[in-house]
Amino acid sequence: MTYAIGIDLGGTKLNIGLVDESGHVLDKVLVATDIDGGPAAIIQQMSFHAKELIVKHHKKPLAIGVGLAGQITREGSVSFAPNLRWKNVPFKSLLYQKLKIPIHVLNDVRAATWAEWHFGAGRDCQDIVCLFIGTGIGGGIVSGGHLLVGANNSAGELGHIVIDRHGPKCTCGNFGCWEAYVGGWGIAERTREMIVVNPQKGERLLKLADNSLEKVTAKVLEKAYHEGDPLSQHLIQEIAKALVAGSISVINALNPRRLIFGGGVIKGLPELIDAVRDGFIQRALASALLDLEILEAHIISDAPMIGAATYALENIHD
Amino acid sequence: MTYAIGIDLGGTKLNIGLVDESGHVLDKVLVATDIDGGPAAIIQQMSFHAKELIVKHHKKPLAIGVGLAGQITREGSVSFAPNLRWKNVPFKSLLYQKLKIPIHVLNDVRAATWAEWHFGAGRDCQDIVCLFIGTGIGGGIVSGGHLLVGANNSAGELGHIVIDRHGPKCTCGNFGCWEAYVGGWGIAERTREMIVVNPQKGERLLKLADNSLEKVTAKVLEKAYHEGDPLSQHLIQEIAKALVAGSISVINALNPRRLIFGGGVIKGLPELIDAVRDGFIQRALASALLDLEILEAHIISDAPMIGAATYALENIHD
Repeated sequence: MTYAIGIDLGGTKLNIGLVDESGHVLDKVLVATDIDGGPAAIIQQMSFHAKELIVKHHKKPLAIGVGLAGQITREGSVSFAPNLRWKNVPFKSLLYQKLKIPIHVLNDVRAATWAEWHFGAGRDCQDIVCLFIGTGIGGGIVSGGHLLVGANNSAGELGHIVIDRHGPKCTCGNFGCWEAYVGGWGIAERTREMIVVNPQKGERLLKLADNSLEKVTAKVLEKAYHEGDPLSQHLIQEIAKALVAGSISVINALNPRRLIFGGGVIKGLPELIDAVRDGFIQRALASALLDLEILEAHIISDAPMIGAATYALENIHD
Repeated sequence: MTYAIGIDLGGTKLNIGLVDESGHVLDKVLVATDIDGGPAAIIQQMSFHAKELIVKHHKKPLAIGVGLAGQITREGSVSFAPNLRWKNVPFKSLLYQKLKIPIHVLNDVRAATWAEWHFGAGRDCQDIVCLFIGTGIGGGIVSGGHLLVGANNSAGELGHIVIDRHGPKCTCGNFGCWEAYVGGWGIAERTREMIVVNPQKGERLLKLADNSLEKVTAKVLEKAYHEGDPLSQHLIQEIAKALVAGSISVINALNPRRLIFGGGVIKGLPELIDAVRDGFIQRALASALLDLEILEAHIISDAPMIGAATYALENIHD
């Protein structure tokens, strides 16, 4: 059995684990990311906890895999990671100086896709698309047994496919992107908008948000929806339609065998997956629907960490 | 040097060529497809002309590649090809019985993409997307040096990504597909619609179509546009905007190094490519725009034939 250290580096939490080649997590440490300390402090955190795990379990990891939300160069530098407040950080070489173990740095969504593909809902399958719906929509594409990275490590940004070119402005500057309708931030915005337009119908939603419009989130909508609130039912139907529209684009373009949904929004509203199943039957291309399965992701919070570790193990000589 | 027979099987024309491994066409025969004769007659045509080329040039082809518009199983059967009027034809095995040479059957757009990738605008590049805009939009995706086929040979149907979910009905049954705005049929429909709504402004267009609304095609719009007709200018601007919206989806999702446009509509209106170049700069993700090139396809009419031949040569042992 071979081992790797997997690291999921987020803007608030740092998840570090000792993982074996079959995706089993032997042990892990979850700490708050020292975001104010900058790259040096975070690298120090990683190095400290990685060494701690290595010593504690007497295992020599062959590789280290780090997943993070950001733009990563082929050399493992982080050119831009807004939630870490990093710009042009030669991350891989800095971490290597501390640990002297081969390192792979990859996008956290691609890492989670790798985990889901090897050990989760995408297992034994050559063609999958993973959609992780949290604040935005992160996508990972495996086609013909290859994880797509694109020319600049940017393939899979499926949250920014256009589903309605006359639609609202997205955080990316474009209009009508998929995540402006289905991502957590887009859901929250639309919910607030509807409460303002229909104050009476929006009463329950607002109450669940401590009567503060600013506190209305996708989580609040989820709660009101499960209570049977009518405005929330209507909103969820709207979201489901937008989810279907983008899903059809994805399956027509990529013809996956499995379309796998994960992330906070899906965890809270698994009903959305059924809406996609129903919506598809009528609208996608027959050839792309053949044998298509629509599934919920299996691996929950540790997917980026497990994926980064096992990806690093499998690509150790690159 | 090795050789293959390449066949581009269309609903009206059958293009058969003797092609070498570097994509050079030694000789070719272009005949009308015997569509009324059904599969047997067409296979007879192929076999006859292939043998003719082999005998004439004293070259022994190692493989035969056939590109056609339709749904092809992994076994090389054609499950559905509307413009050939074929359903469940065991095409590969029928043709093999005649020629006894290894055969590969692939989608014609994927074949053209293969040609463009190896010998055209996609040369020496690992990440390209080809968009052939004719009657519809056919797409071909190469990512990380692999031509994507998907779970059922259906990957790359980029004409059926949704750009406006509240848009007009597409031939596929869905609403607001990209090709409903930018494909030849969609352009013709929109142009007719505008002539009916603005009969005076549409005068020139109608005249160019022999005063018959039915004869209004994308070709007619192209002609009026190049004459400076104001309604046509307006329509082309609309089409360009739709082209940009879908192109942004494609580059955000796939992060190609080169986006390559070909097909009849682009040949007639290469100005559309400039519109995409301009539109991108403002709207796509910065990470996906890095180093992106937007190019016109290099290989014109023989791309599916050359691509099918050279694909077959390169995948001879599959």
